[in-house]
Amino acid sequence: MGDRVEEILGWYGSESPGVLRNLRWMLESGRLAGTGKLVMLPVDQGFEHGPARSFAKNGAAYDPLYHYQLAIDAGCNAYAAPLGFLEAGARQYAGRIPTILKLNNSDSLWSSEDPKPAVTGSVEDALRLGCAAVGFTIYPGSCHRNEMYAEFQEIAEEAKASGLAVVLWSYPRGAELSSKGETAIDVVAYAAQIAAQLGAHIIKVKPPTAEIEQEAARKVYEEQNIDVSSLPERIAHVVQSAFAGRRIVIFSGGAAKDTSEVLEEIRGIAAGGSFGSIMGRNSFQRPKSEGVELLQAVMAIYDEQS
Amino acid sequence: MGDRVEEILGWYGSESPGVLRNLRWMLESGRLAGTGKLVMLPVDQGFEHGPARSFAKNGAAYDPLYHYQLAIDAGCNAYAAPLGFLEAGARQYAGRIPTILKLNNSDSLWSSEDPKPAVTGSVEDALRLGCAAVGFTIYPGSCHRNEMYAEFQEIAEEAKASGLAVVLWSYPRGAELSSKGETAIDVVAYAAQIAAQLGAHIIKVKPPTAEIEQEAARKVYEEQNIDVSSLPERIAHVVQSAFAGRRIVIFSGGAAKDTSEVLEEIRGIAAGGSFGSIMGRNSFQRPKSEGVELLQAVMAIYDEQS
Amino acid sequence: MGDRVEEILGWYGSESPGVLRNLRWMLESGRLAGTGKLVMLPVDQGFEHGPARSFAKNGAAYDPLYHYQLAIDAGCNAYAAPLGFLEAGARQYAGRIPTILKLNNSDSLWSSEDPKPAVTGSVEDALRLGCAAVGFTIYPGSCHRNEMYAEFQEIAEEAKASGLAVVLWSYPRGAELSSKGETAIDVVAYAAQIAAQLGAHIIKVKPPTAEIEQEAARKVYEEQNIDVSSLPERIAHVVQSAFAGRRIVIFSGGAAKDTSEVLEEIRGIAAGGSFGSIMGRNSFQRPKSEGVELLQAVMAIYDEQS
Amino acid sequence: MGDRVEEILGWYGSESPGVLRNLRWMLESGRLAGTGKLVMLPVDQGFEHGPARSFAKNGAAYDPLYHYQLAIDAGCNAYAAPLGFLEAGARQYAGRIPTILKLNNSDSLWSSEDPKPAVTGSVEDALRLGCAAVGFTIYPGSCHRNEMYAEFQEIAEEAKASGLAVVLWSYPRGAELSSKGETAIDVVAYAAQIAAQLGAHIIKVKPPTAEIEQEAARKVYEEQNIDVSSLPERIAHVVQSAFAGRRIVIFSGGAAKDTSEVLEEIRGIAAGGSFGSIMGRNSFQRPKSEGVELLQAVMAIYDEQS
Amino acid sequence: MGDRVEEILGWYGSESPGVLRNLRWMLESGRLAGTGKLVMLPVDQGFEHGPARSFAKNGAAYDPLYHYQLAIDAGCNAYAAPLGFLEAGARQYAGRIPTILKLNNSDSLWSSEDPKPAVTGSVEDALRLGCAAVGFTIYPGSCHRNEMYAEFQEIAEEAKASGLAVVLWSYPRGAELSSKGETAIDVVAYAAQIAAQLGAHIIKVKPPTAEIEQEAARKVYEEQNIDVSSLPERIAHVVQSAFAGRRIVIFSGGAAKDTSEVLEEIRGIAAGGSFGSIMGRNSFQRPKSEGVELLQAVMAIYDEQS
Repeated sequence: MGDRVEEILGWYGSESPGVLRNLRWMLESGRLAGTGKLVMLPVDQGFEHGPARSFAKNGAAYDPLYHYQLAIDAGCNAYAAPLGFLEAGARQYAGRIPTILKLNNSDSLWSSEDPKPAVTGSVEDALRLGCAAVGFTIYPGSCHRNEMYAEFQEIAEEAKASGLAVVLWSYPRGAELSSKGETAIDVVAYAAQIAAQLGAHIIKVKPPTAEIEQEAARKVYEEQNIDVSSLPERIAHVVQSAFAGRRIVIFSGGAAKDTSEVLEEIRGIAAGGSFGSIMGRNSFQRPKSEGVELLQAVMAIYDEQS
Repeated sequence: MGDRVEEILGWYGSESPGVLRNLRWMLESGRLAGTGKLVMLPVDQGFEHGPARSFAKNGAAYDPLYHYQLAIDAGCNAYAAPLGFLEAGARQYAGRIPTILKLNNSDSLWSSEDPKPAVTGSVEDALRLGCAAVGFTIYPGSCHRNEMYAEFQEIAEEAKASGLAVVLWSYPRGAELSSKGETAIDVVAYAAQIAAQLGAHIIKVKPPTAEIEQEAARKVYEEQNIDVSSLPERIAHVVQSAFAGRRIVIFSGGAAKDTSEVLEEIRGIAAGGSFGSIMGRNSFQRPKSEGVELLQAVMAIYDEQS
Repeated sequence: MGDRVEEILGWYGSESPGVLRNLRWMLESGRLAGTGKLVMLPVDQGFEHGPARSFAKNGAAYDPLYHYQLAIDAGCNAYAAPLGFLEAGARQYAGRIPTILKLNNSDSLWSSEDPKPAVTGSVEDALRLGCAAVGFTIYPGSCHRNEMYAEFQEIAEEAKASGLAVVLWSYPRGAELSSKGETAIDVVAYAAQIAAQLGAHIIKVKPPTAEIEQEAARKVYEEQNIDVSSLPERIAHVVQSAFAGRRIVIFSGGAAKDTSEVLEEIRGIAAGGSFGSIMGRNSFQRPKSEGVELLQAVMAIYDEQS
Repeated sequence: MGDRVEEILGWYGSESPGVLRNLRWMLESGRLAGTGKLVMLPVDQGFEHGPARSFAKNGAAYDPLYHYQLAIDAGCNAYAAPLGFLEAGARQYAGRIPTILKLNNSDSLWSSEDPKPAVTGSVEDALRLGCAAVGFTIYPGSCHRNEMYAEFQEIAEEAKASGLAVVLWSYPRGAELSSKGETAIDVVAYAAQIAAQLGAHIIKVKPPTAEIEQEAARKVYEEQNIDVSSLPERIAHVVQSAFAGRRIVIFSGGAAKDTSEVLEEIRGIAAGGSFGSIMGRNSFQRPKSEGVELLQAVMAIYDEQS
Repeated sequence: MGDRVEEILGWYGSESPGVLRNLRWMLESGRLAGTGKLVMLPVDQGFEHGPARSFAKNGAAYDPLYHYQLAIDAGCNAYAAPLGFLEAGARQYAGRIPTILKLNNSDSLWSSEDPKPAVTGSVEDALRLGCAAVGFTIYPGSCHRNEMYAEFQEIAEEAKASGLAVVLWSYPRGAELSSKGETAIDVVAYAAQIAAQLGAHIIKVKPPTAEIEQEAARKVYEEQNIDVSSLPERIAHVVQSAFAGRRIVIFSGGAAKDTSEVLEEIRGIAAGGSFGSIMGRNSFQRPKSEGVELLQAVMAIYDEQS
């Protein structure tokens, strides 16, 4: 299994050994260590959706230390959060699990058809807190996308020079995209390509539907008979769209669902060759033992694929 | 009681001993020293509302030295003001009471549905003036919120590197929020969460009402039976929303009221587990002896809770 | 009389001896030396209104050296002008009279309801030219006010660190203010407060009228019986609004008037406790001997008050 | 008694309120708070003389936390030590006692007739560790003295700009000084003067003997009948030599002695008007209870003088 | 056992979580992971003594990859080397074993009674190469010691700010020390103290002999009956001399010896409470299987002590 980690690291030949050290840390932590698969716990919902919507279902989750411990107990490869959540436990948990500092975030007290997150942390913060990586969100499709791409460019350049890995959330959203278009297969595949072209090491996208948003794309999908009818085929297409599988692409889980629905979706994602999942609300919006159980069931699915 | 201060400082494990020194200074000053509770005097109303509206009721309060002395005589933990007010007495009062330099401020000669304060001071100013902390205001809900968050990110990073504590006023305001929504429980709790995630050490919010502003939030409050019918329950919910009580959250007093109304409200705030109050107009818009008396009555309430 | 200068310098305890040196230079220059009163000559009208509108009435005033000499001959405490005017005579007049370099200026070839001056000089320029102070204009009430406040914050911090005094012209102006509101007593008092809070050492405002612009303010003026019916009472209120008299506040003269009108107004301003006047057009838009005579008459009025 | 602190702070009028805050912190801490007298615990002997020579007599003193606690238990005004000793306890003791980071130190594994300490810490370290001051040692009389003075100049400038106080150990030593000359009254008085001229806020020298080292000085001492026959007269002369008493001068205790000898010397030092003592080996080279007892006896002597 | 790691990390409370992450990485790597003990492989002999003297006995050791693999196969906690050796394998071995970049080195083509190594790498190099720590050598006793201490001060400050741990080789050497004195118990204990005071996280010294070099020290060792007759007693004294055991102190092995001699010495070192050993020539100047065997035998001894 360790060979798979070497193979993956081999794709990042332009990066320094410092960056590889941190990518390896994530790839060799937790229950999936060494498999080339990753299951991460992201907890930025407090900032993105508000505290009650995020944590009331499982009150213990208001506590930032809860999430460090959940990620460790479940055997996640990494834990991602905004500055405040990481700062609150960084000393006690220093080096016990790879962390990813989310450097931009959006709240829901003001909404826009063309969203743009606020920059809420820095590469220096990530070094100070002992993180493995910095995380960043772009919204391809927003009229502000270019500012986000440029912000990311600067952050990624600085992070790489400091030996940190770079994780990019690429979530299409904006006035010119239809609601369904945000997860359309052509759009998600395109978002993965943009993230890879921007120099991300790890790319997070949403599971795509069979919708096709752009007419110019539809023509090609039809002419070339690109089969996107099943979830595994769509996942494979997205992974292919991120440099023919030469970049780590993982998929988010979206809104909380019941366990069987979650695992059903994960099976499809894993079957398509995803490098893993990032699962927030489904993990921490249930009692901790159930959250651990679910995350481990997800890991078991990926383990079978590795 | 001192153990409570150690417990509180333990929550800020990512900060340097320099920052802890200044947090301790505030926690161990004044009548509430060592209790883990804080009552602060903020005087930015001259800038925010104009001099006559702020100081005419008690003409002695036009004098910046008045406020330093009021804060000391009443036994406040700290005194917060904009650059000019602090500069006017910083030499005479150097080290006699912890001060907080407010680094941004809004005036009322121009109004906007989506307000954004001006940056009016710097971290270097705070070091020069011997302050314990810098203060900053964000308006979640304003279309300019992201610029404010980003300004705060830079200021907070610099302040922490210089050993200063960081106090964040988080006051929801903006075109998409209703007037009642600015103090709705869901919105205030969210504002506390945003401030905590941005890395603030001390968070100031307004006392919340039982209103719920956001439909997505209402659903959760109802489903989870979050009881927000009494002020203590609402306060407890806001404190919980700031990292399950792992961040210092204090509440402002709002417009001047009569003494019994103020104390009644403070009793509710204290019963809910607030770390304290910040009380400006109610303190200095009455004769000094009455202001001192009121502040000490407020402190007595908190002292009972500690 | 010297005691008054010491008293005034005592208000600036946060500033370095370098700043005090320059404040003292102005307070101890000219005919009013040592009285604590200041009469200054400002000549930025060439930039602000154009040359013919400014200098045609008295052709000698096209020459920048004219103004240096006028200020000296009349016994002014200081002479303030934009970069070019100061540069033109700085060598010959180096150290002969305190100068104030105006660091921003507006021209009249483009107008806006919400004006914002251009930055036209630097602190380094002021050091190079041997100035006592830098000057800056803010327009509270403009939608661009926050940018001006932030520009001033940076300039003031740099000037103070270099030992220069800081003079702030605070002139309310903007789309939401009525024309009468620009000199309404509540607005002028507020403008003085803002300037003081921003850290200015010397504040220049316009003589206020008995108008009240803001409804929220009117309520307070009426409730508190703040008498603003006479010019001296209004001046006293503005001085009080700038830190209870702990900041130097001086008043501009406005449009050119005949001599008796000017002196009448000055008598009212002086009676209210103003620290002095700044008088441009009334000084240089008449033959030099008359300008000198007028300025000395003004000084005589202040001398009686000291 | 507090008036004495205000008087002392008044001597440092060129410093910012930030520096005054830290001077006040030291003057208002511990058993002598408010008296204008200071007793400090310095523990740099581990570096200067080696661990066994410093700590073997009282083995508990190998532990850096011991000294923080000793200083607190005895009621010292401040605790001074090199980087490592401060770092080892700075988090636990943050803000509990003023600390002074010694920025240069000499070890005894290499000796020189003309010694020069190594720079072992920075002003940034002092901010990070929450110190009240930085400390520095100069050896007037060493051929390297000018390099030390220049190093101090840079450090003091940076420290003052950051709001830190500056403590200077001025210990004459070098090839051209006789052994007796290092503590000769003319030399110690001269060392105090040099420290004051270099801009130190607090000056530490050794108790002077009645020796006179320099012939040029001897002539004046004799001509002017400067009485240096008793310790109090010599102390008074040294304090006078540091700006007529306008700088805080404190005296070190030297090698460990028995209790009565120590107290006898302190009585003489205090009678001469010393601002206090700095006592290392005599404090920590005996059991803790005896060290506390001795320090408190010393403080009692100073308290009588205040 | 993990509790011991938490206890050790607790001693470094002034450091950021980033530094703790890297300390933990070393403490939780290899065969001794979690025991609080460390065995490290250092390979700087190629630079220090020349290639043939270092590698000819075991020709495979000319290859830099050999040493990475040796450290991993043996289960070392970390591998330390100069820039070139680390660069040669940093990509392949990124993140597989904690590495320490030695930032200064001495060669043997020029010798001096008072040696001073050249600075041969930077903190940026260490970040680029994914190191856990930087290493540095000081020679207390050299006339150039102060330059080395000052170089270390700057490097340590930068490394800590970047989240890197700092390892200090403290090897007394210089014209005034006798050859035996370099490993005399008083001198080695002093060297450990100096390293700790300079802010090192991990300190490397040589096993001390029962010699006493300095007369001033001898007096204390005799008076206080410090027993240094056995190796364990001497080791315990050195560990005590590094902040009463609050700093990680490990011991080097010195010149190559036969296996039983090495293990005998290690038993004595371990019995005295050493945190571990650093063993270069004895490890790589024999066939790899024997080197691994020896290192594992050493680790087994430490494991028994943990």
